[in-house]
Order: sequence, then C-alpha cells, then structure tokens
Amino acid sequence: MNYKNAVALVLSACTMLPLYANANITEAPARPKNMIIMVGDGMGPAYTSAYRYFQDNPSTEEIESTVFDRLLVGMASTYPARVSGYVTDSAASATALATGNKSYNGAIGVDVNKQPLTSIMEMAKLRGMSTGVAVTSQVNHATPGAFLAHNESRKNYEAIAEGILESDADVILGGGQKYFSEELLAKFNAKGYQHITELSQLESIDKPKVLGLFADVQMPWVLNSPDANTLSKLTSKALALLSQNEKGFVLLVEGSLIDWAGHNNDVATAMAELNGFANAIEVVEQYVRQHKDTLMVVTADHNTGGLSVGANGTYRWDTQLLKGISATPASIASKAVATDDWQAAVKQQLGFEVSADELQKLSDARDQDADALEIALKKLIDVRSYTGWTTGGHTGVDVQVFAAGPAADLFKGNQDNTHIAEKMMSLLPKLN
Amino acid sequence: MNYKNAVALVLSACTMLPLYANANITEAPARPKNMIIMVGDGMGPAYTSAYRYFQDNPSTEEIESTVFDRLLVGMASTYPARVSGYVTDSAASATALATGNKSYNGAIGVDVNKQPLTSIMEMAKLRGMSTGVAVTSQVNHATPGAFLAHNESRKNYEAIAEGILESDADVILGGGQKYFSEELLAKFNAKGYQHITELSQLESIDKPKVLGLFADVQMPWVLNSPDANTLSKLTSKALALLSQNEKGFVLLVEGSLIDWAGHNNDVATAMAELNGFANAIEVVEQYVRQHKDTLMVVTADHNTGGLSVGANGTYRWDTQLLKGISATPASIASKAVATDDWQAAVKQQLGFEVSADELQKLSDARDQDADALEIALKKLIDVRSYTGWTTGGHTGVDVQVFAAGPAADLFKGNQDNTHIAEKMMSLLPKLN
Repeated sequence: MNYKNAVALVLSACTMLPLYANANITEAPARPKNMIIMVGDGMGPAYTSAYRYFQDNPSTEEIESTVFDRLLVGMASTYPARVSGYVTDSAASATALATGNKSYNGAIGVDVNKQPLTSIMEMAKLRGMSTGVAVTSQVNHATPGAFLAHNESRKNYEAIAEGILESDADVILGGGQKYFSEELLAKFNAKGYQHITELSQLESIDKPKVLGLFADVQMPWVLNSPDANTLSKLTSKALALLSQNEKGFVLLVEGSLIDWAGHNNDVATAMAELNGFANAIEVVEQYVRQHKDTLMVVTADHNTGGLSVGANGTYRWDTQLLKGISATPASIASKAVATDDWQAAVKQQLGFEVSADELQKLSDARDQDADALEIALKKLIDVRSYTGWTTGGHTGVDVQVFAAGPAADLFKGNQDNTHIAEKMMSLLPKLN
Repeated sequence: MNYKNAVALVLSACTMLPLYANANITEAPARPKNMIIMVGDGMGPAYTSAYRYFQDNPSTEEIESTVFDRLLVGMASTYPARVSGYVTDSAASATALATGNKSYNGAIGVDVNKQPLTSIMEMAKLRGMSTGVAVTSQVNHATPGAFLAHNESRKNYEAIAEGILESDADVILGGGQKYFSEELLAKFNAKGYQHITELSQLESIDKPKVLGLFADVQMPWVLNSPDANTLSKLTSKALALLSQNEKGFVLLVEGSLIDWAGHNNDVATAMAELNGFANAIEVVEQYVRQHKDTLMVVTADHNTGGLSVGANGTYRWDTQLLKGISATPASIASKAVATDDWQAAVKQQLGFEVSADELQKLSDARDQDADALEIALKKLIDVRSYTGWTTGGHTGVDVQVFAAGPAADLFKGNQDNTHIAEKMMSLLPKLN
C-alpha cells in the first residue's frame, strides 16, 4: 500500500462516519468563537411536540417538521440542589445553566450557601469577549438575572438590576423599565450605555453598549402583537452588535413568556410565545449557518404546567381551533367586561363557534369579573381543543437540548443541565 | 510528510471524533446481525424522568443516572395517519414501528385501506433469520400483534392469535391463554411449537420453537409480584433461543403494562412496571455489550395518562412515599372490601401515615365498592406524592429513542416512528 492509498483508505473510513463529524474536520473550527445559549422558559417536550401540530398544515398529507425537529441532539435533567427536591424553579435552573452548579430554588447565581458562583458571562468577560442578553421578560427576571448577577433571591429585582450594571454586559434587551430608577439609569449612562425604550430606536443603535428596556415589566404577549418577531428583532440586533468583537461573544436569548403562559394554563398564548421563540431560533440558526465559528445551544430550564396534547380520554388535539384564537384570554376578558355588547367581540376573537350553553357559562363568569371570565375562556379553550394541564407550577420532566455549530455533538444524549454550562465553559478560550 | 505520518495525522483527526464512531471502525460491524426492538408502552418522557427520581437514593448527594440516561440517542414523533389526528393508539404506533407505515388508530399491521403491510419480522423470516416476542400483555395485544399479524382491528384477538401462528415466530412469550383455543394450540403443536404455561418450565426449553403463555390475559403486575424480573427472564430466554440461528434474529420486547397503569392513572403501579422494563433493558444492554454484532433500539409507542412529576402548584415529588407502596391500589382495594379489619392492612400496604380525614374518605369509598376504594386510594397517592394526570387515554408528546450497538447512531436526533422501522429494515441483509 502506498501513501496515497493508505490515506484514501483511512479517509474513506472517516467518511463512513456521520456527516457532521466530517464537517468538523473539513470546514468548521473544533472550538467556537461565539456561543449563543437560548432558553425556552418552561418549554418541556410536550410544548415542542404541540408546536409541530400547531404549525401543521392540515391540507397536506405530511406533517411539516419544525426548527426543533431539525436541531434536536439530546435531553437534560433539570432538578435543583437536593435541598429543593426534584422540581426546579427558573432561578435554580438558570443558575445551573449559567454557572454549572446546582443551587436552591430562588438562587440567582449563588450556591446553596448564598455565595456567588462564576458565570459563563463573567468567564467570557475575563477573556475580552462581549456578552449580551435578549429576553421577553424583564431583563432582571430569573434567567437573565442568573447569567448576569448574583443574589440570594430572585425577588430582589432592584438589586439584580444593580448587578446587571456591574456585569458590564454589552447588550441588554428586554422589558423591565420599572426596576431601573433614574439613579441607576444615570450609572448605566456614565458607563457609556445607550438607553432606549422603543423598538423603533433599535435601528439607530450601531454599536454596543446598549440598555434597551421596551416595557414596564414583560414585553407584550405575541398573541396580542401585530407580528411574532419581536424577540427575533432583539436577537438580530444583539448578534449584529456583539459580532463586532473579534474576540467573540456569549449571548443569552430567552423566550421568557412561554413559561408565564404555562403558569396561567393558557395554551393559545403559550403556542404564540413558542412561535415567537421558534422564530428567534431560526434567526440564530441562519447566523450559525453563515458563521461557521458560532455554536448555538437551545434548551428549556424546566417544564411548566404539565401541558398535554390530548386530554380527558380523547385521542385528539384541535389545532385548527387554537390557530383561530386572535387574542389572549386575559385581553378578551378585560375588553369584554368593559362593554355591554361583548358577545360578538368574544366570538370573533375566539374564532370558533360557541354553543348557547358555553356562552351562558362565559356570561355567568363575566358577571363576576374579568378574572373569572379569563378562567372560563381558558377552560372553554382547553375543553374544545383537548388540552390538559396538571399544575400552575413546574414539573420535573427532562427537557430537550438542541444544538448546531462547532462542538454541537458535545450536547448529544442525556446530560444534566449543569453539564450544559460545563461543556460551554470548556469551549471558551484558555486564559493565559 | 511520509506515509506513516500522513496516516497518523488522519487517524488522529478521526480520534477527535466521538468514541462510538471509532468503535464502529475498529470493533463492531457497521451492520448488525441481530436486532432487538424494545417498546415501553405508554412510556413518554415524564415516565423516564420520574423513574430517575423514583430510583434515587436520597441519602447520597448525587442523583443516580438510569439505563435510560445511558442509552438516550434521540426522540420520535408518534402521530398516526392523518385520518386519526395527532394522538396515536398502540395499534397504529406498533404498525408504524413494525412496518414503517402510518395507519389509522386500531390498525394491526395494515394500511389505511386495511391492506397488509410487510413487517420487519416478515422481512427477517424471508432472510432465514429467527424472530420472537417477549411481552407482559397477552401476546396478541396491539404491539406484538402488529409485529406478527395483520388485522383491521386490534379487538379481533382470536384472529390475531391465528395470525401469530402464521408468522412462524420462533419465540412467543407473554400472557393470553384465553385467546388460544385447544384447536389453535393443536395447530401450534403440529408446527413443532413447545407449549408451556408456567415460568418454571422456561428452564427446560433449550431450542425454538416455543409458545409460552403464562397468564390468562396479562402477566401479573410487578408491584404484586415477588420480584421485578419476570420480563427480564422472558427476555433472557428469548435471547438464548434466538441466538442459535447463525443468520441472526429480530426480537421485540415490550413492557406492555406501563401503558395499562398509565390508563389507570396509577403512578405506583406504573413505576413498578417501568422498573421491570428497565431491568429487561439492562439484560439486553448486557447482551449487546457481549455481542458486538447486536443492535438494540428502545422507544415508546406513545405517552399515556399525561403523567407529571409535580402537580397542583407544588414544586415537589415524593418518591419516598411511592417507594413504600407494596401492592397495586386495585389489589389493596379488593382485599380491603373482603374483610372488616381492613384498616391496618391498607395502612401497611400503603406504607405511609394516613390522617383521620384521609382514612374517612377511604372508608366512605369502601362503603361503595372495591372500584370506588381503588379510585380513592389512587387519588390519595397522587395528592400525597404530588403526581398529576390529564387523561385516561394517550397524549401526543414525542417519545425518547435509546440505542446501543452497531448503527445506533442512525437513531440520533429527531425522527418519526416510521423512520425507526425504516432504519432497522435498512440494516437487514440484502436479499439475493
């Protein structure tokens, strides 16, 4: 065997390996320059399955696959430190994803002894990289909070906002105006941050640093918005700004409100939020395709609500009905109690036929107040769509892990959520 | 660069690839000689997560990983043919796993036009390979039925039993005596089958063919059995018998009763059945380690019950309580209505303290009948363990896929359940 033949033989053995493995050898670097972690808050496996059917075009024979189907590589366990049992909250799981350490429910970047843990964002800063967050909750909520700050309790919103100032993050986009006092904003200003409050101002921002707070608390619900691309726009801008650092960046993107809709047991709102998050994933997927030096990892911090596709013994899930709903039940209810001529508007916003009996139940609830009507609307939607829930809190089912780009294979199979952080940290450049 | 260095360089590139890839090159054949498909009926992602916590030793800091954690490679969608919507039954999903084709709910190895579909078992037989099933339901239930027979309805148990005769399967182990008439057994006998009805007779069987029917309908519940290894024993015997064919074999192993416990919304019984199935997976895992020419693929046909780990707003799941339950609620209830001195026995079998109020509720239910007491016991267990359910039927969440052995990588990422069958079929030897 001569030299050429021998190399050809071994290379041929290599080509029997999966395509991505070859791609690692021939095209992309083994270690990413940039890393994007995306968290679908509360997005357990039933959500991504539901989303496939929600997106399905029933007039084709095929059921179209989604961005989640394309990118699935593994799953992750989410349990918190033993002191908090088996079911995590968003703070402990965000601390796990940001620092690689288990902590108690409520912990923001601190360990079980309330001592600060080093986050991947801090490690990136030490290496001269840029960091950013783009979320649909307030930017000082549990998940971005644990990536950027340290506090013994997720409830200390003002202190977490102060912590975000200290993080020196280059891009901070989301909601939360009410937690940023004039005094705090002045400190951001002194550090060189551009402070904006309208999405339309995003276009004018062409370099870091930026603090964009676009809502008093959470961003508007996708289901009540003119389009489903707000998080996509925040994500695109964050990528454009962070890409300016030649040393690379770490970006957190969170579809925060999937979880909030899950806590509310509100399936129509949850599917719309999931759609907004999926659109942002597609933006990042496109970026990763065009930037071979960028790794994306998508996961959930836990499952919320115990959502099920099918309920109460019926082998069915009515996505057509869900797709016709054009506003959140909370929005429908608050408008309906403010006018006597409410029935036509409610029917129009629900988008499906309501029986006389169902209408009577809605009317009885409306006679109480908007909250009662919202609950009645959600119950009607659940019954008619065959949607189930088990809790207003979280559940302990493992979540999925999706990845693309250099070292995406590291995240395949089963892993603990702390290992996701450890793997990403291991991909940072070595400190001299 | 000389020849040795060049080969070393390329080989060194190869060794940067995942370990399994190297294993494929150096140790195991690319194509398996034997294939084992294992189905945890109804075993959605919440079941395997729950099982990890159910198995956890709370006196250690670590949460021990399970066989499911070790073997996870991907997930699968389970929807049936469009005519049946998005939520499958066990017949349509078994038809998908056995034949690679979507069909309607209720279909046993037939397409939407009720025409027979070729199964992987039939393809194996055509190639001179051996086939077998080892299950905990009756052997003519939906899953083994779709692998071995063809019928327009899963309810036609006698016809499916006849179809199993025609399949020429070499090993048939499970329950279902009531569906096999003397006449049908005579036909099995005429074909050379050894017919046994006691587990103790298994030892004496040292060659195919064997028809082992060890229960009138289903095998006994693991939770009411002296050990959790019945399915393991059936599996071990099936492997020993099928291994005698030098051309290889295809074996179906099903943890059938996980689903039945799920339909009953009976978490204690479900965890015990899952444990029995996990033990059988470990038997197969060990076989695959010792037989490098054998592929194992484990999945579920769908999710049952909408089980959730944590319920009703509480971030907790009490596995210690569940582990203390020593009989199925149905068994506890049937014994309790047969005696006046029932309270001590119920408390002992539940294994946890019951309050006066809870005891009164059980007593009221017992005054009705055993069914009412069983329901009350399950509700008590759910409330005390923080377990949730959404349905007595199935749900549409994707299920996990676990694999080891040659070509295990084929099953990674997301796939449809029909693709699992197609991939396994593609690994059969080519017909001349």
